[in-house]
Amino acid sequence: MPFQLHPQLMRDFHVLGRCGATRSLHLLLRRNAILPWFLLVPESDALELHELEPALREELDRAADCLAVLVKRHFACDKINTAAIGNIVPQLHLHLIGRRRDDCCWPQAPWGHVNVERDYASEELVALQSALLEEARLGFGNGAQ
Amino acid sequence: MPFQLHPQLMRDFHVLGRCGATRSLHLLLRRNAILPWFLLVPESDALELHELEPALREELDRAADCLAVLVKRHFACDKINTAAIGNIVPQLHLHLIGRRRDDCCWPQAPWGHVNVERDYASEELVALQSALLEEARLGFGNGAQ
Repeated sequence: MPFQLHPQLMRDFHVLGRCGATRSLHLLLRRNAILPWFLLVPESDALELHELEPALREELDRAADCLAVLVKRHFACDKINTAAIGNIVPQLHLHLIGRRRDDCCWPQAPWGHVNVERDYASEELVALQSALLEEARLGFGNGAQ
Repeated sequence: MPFQLHPQLMRDFHVLGRCGATRSLHLLLRRNAILPWFLLVPESDALELHELEPALREELDRAADCLAVLVKRHFACDKINTAAIGNIVPQLHLHLIGRRRDDCCWPQAPWGHVNVERDYASEELVALQSALLEEARLGFGNGAQ
């Protein structure tokens, strides 16, 4: 069966495109601009990081590192929070969240502590897509180029 | 200045020993047996995963993978939660937490959701040290052998 993103991820996140050296990672953005909250979802049936095949784990790590630098710069963040949790949505996904010392729930971990919502404006999404496309090492593609 | 573990980590966690291919990672265990909650602390001044030198990042990943397998087996866990947050304690540390569907705060992420405390009994720590020492790939040493 072809790989499909989990319905709950599709509901809660914008699907921005794919990234990684072999484009095997789906890049998602939470539909809440209160925090710049990204997911990297590898095309895999693995449920845990340590179950990923080594090449895909490596691709995930490299893309996460590159995305972290981009998020810190684009959103002027002080810190990156990264996590693989998956207690609710079992499909393996890596959270990568930009944090600022003046954000809504600093210094808490964000899960369960974000009580404000605002979706991105379309121009914010366009600016973000441009930044992602400009960062060659991320290997980002949105199917439009 | 020689590397020192952050005082807050020393206060909240048992220092079990070192692990990794070059023993460059400190392995800590939270002083609360309600969840099997480990930290891996690389000997580095880096504050973010993506700032670690590549060899140390690789060592951290390999040790985390190996520890995840061990924790799932030793504590009969259903899931591993892994995260680098560091909003409160800036010294880079990777959380690795074994989760069970019947644990105190499933399916929530554990940060800020653990309201029960019980320290490990000494025989539990001895059994855990044995399990860690038996797992050769983890490269664990507690200074006692």
